[in-house]
Amino acid sequence: MTIKSIVSINGKLFDREAAKVSVFDRGFLFGDSVYEVTLTHNQKIFLLDDHLDRLWLSAEKLGIEIEWTREKFLVEIEKCIQHLGLPRVYIRIVVTRGEGEIGLDPALGISNNHVLIVKELPENPKNWYAQGVHMIVADIQRTSKKAMDPGVKSGNYLNNVMAIKEAKERGAFDAIMLNYKGQVTEATTSNIYIVKDQKVLTPPLQAGLLEGITRKTLIDLGQRNHLTIHQEDFSAGELRMADEAFLTSSTKGIVPITKIDETAIGSGKVGPLTTQLSEIYQNFVLSHS
Amino acid sequence: MTIKSIVSINGKLFDREAAKVSVFDRGFLFGDSVYEVTLTHNQKIFLLDDHLDRLWLSAEKLGIEIEWTREKFLVEIEKCIQHLGLPRVYIRIVVTRGEGEIGLDPALGISNNHVLIVKELPENPKNWYAQGVHMIVADIQRTSKKAMDPGVKSGNYLNNVMAIKEAKERGAFDAIMLNYKGQVTEATTSNIYIVKDQKVLTPPLQAGLLEGITRKTLIDLGQRNHLTIHQEDFSAGELRMADEAFLTSSTKGIVPITKIDETAIGSGKVGPLTTQLSEIYQNFVLSHS
Repeated sequence: MTIKSIVSINGKLFDREAAKVSVFDRGFLFGDSVYEVTLTHNQKIFLLDDHLDRLWLSAEKLGIEIEWTREKFLVEIEKCIQHLGLPRVYIRIVVTRGEGEIGLDPALGISNNHVLIVKELPENPKNWYAQGVHMIVADIQRTSKKAMDPGVKSGNYLNNVMAIKEAKERGAFDAIMLNYKGQVTEATTSNIYIVKDQKVLTPPLQAGLLEGITRKTLIDLGQRNHLTIHQEDFSAGELRMADEAFLTSSTKGIVPITKIDETAIGSGKVGPLTTQLSEIYQNFVLSHS
Repeated sequence: MTIKSIVSINGKLFDREAAKVSVFDRGFLFGDSVYEVTLTHNQKIFLLDDHLDRLWLSAEKLGIEIEWTREKFLVEIEKCIQHLGLPRVYIRIVVTRGEGEIGLDPALGISNNHVLIVKELPENPKNWYAQGVHMIVADIQRTSKKAMDPGVKSGNYLNNVMAIKEAKERGAFDAIMLNYKGQVTEATTSNIYIVKDQKVLTPPLQAGLLEGITRKTLIDLGQRNHLTIHQEDFSAGELRMADEAFLTSSTKGIVPITKIDETAIGSGKVGPLTTQLSEIYQNFVLSHS
């Protein structure tokens, strides 16, 4: 199957093959860029406001000034969506610090490149949700907040690439990363949660993780449904002893975890609180489609 | 002044404006690439073998297989040098994991992109060497070896970009980065050395730093000139109390440091051992030109 896609570079549309940026772009040279990923449900962009808030937050933390307005992003993304005419698409928004003479000094980056990659998004495999996925705990440590804040969604993703590489080599779906204290942070592109004795836990932002939009949404939804999600640290050991565990991400929603390394989580089946939260989240998604 | 340049992408030559890579390239998306920088002295490539050794080492650590041979790199770099016809050029070699469907899984990267950026390299300002430079100690911590080995010269350079940003905001030449233990590691694109009581010290690789080609060369040259460079940890406090300090990099050679934050180093002038090592290194460079 060929995935249909369209790319907008600074507002100009390109086919996949023609969509190129300069090798002098700092995104290419240093990963000096910020990005967001969201999707559409029935051609409606999902939680764009939250994603743009976070895009600006990431940029601010790196000192990147975004030239486009929020309205401009909306207009240009809609252009891509209309062009493809598909109900469900993946949307990647990338803003780089720009091009210039080569050198680390960020002042050399002149004029952002704004890249939108919009492409067909097939439905995720049903068995992820029905049977749950198998995760590993990565040997590689999550980057420390003091070196490169994991709360910044930037073009520096090798830490996560190396973690998922470990997972794939061990036949797993994805990897869970620990911080230097040995506390659980997140998976490579998802936040993580456990259930223990009816209590739902997710690591706090201070553990060093990206504040997921789905995480934020689910915490809100939990609150409104008398199902509090507690932001508390836990270790890899506590993770393995959990009754249930699951992941959240914008494109995957809620994905149950039923095995970590060689340990079955709880009964080894999708747990009741995971199911309950998935239903609550599904209803929320439907009401935004 | 316009800097003359030529770019080779997978062996095809492009002018600066036309030199582009796909937005689906993993170097652009995730900084999933490795690179090297060297230069020519009188049209002769400086220490290319050492740089290619390190390129392969970086790639191996990330699990990137480099498709080109060493000979192919040499031929293609020479093509660029001939094209420009300048005595002194900067050479940047970038190899990305390639393009493919978007996703962190490195298996999605199909076929490397090999990018060579070759450009005119003006002589460095004489006052760097005559008066020395002003450095700061960065607040941002050097990435931990357990998260992302600083010994890998990769497309993930935001940690260093953020450090030099601090330096520029404080009017300094560059920043010195400490590891999580508070030990000195390196500057953003140079290794660092101090002289204390006639003893020359540079942080060991275990501190978490890139093994500079100039560092390796200078340690060898020191050995042969009865001027041992000791690989030992030191703190920011010891750095400020040093009698002399200097930096080394492939494109800058040996650059004396005469001020760190608000503290003059030693006499505040270029020190005698720095001068002696600079002369030894200059002779080495001349013999390879």
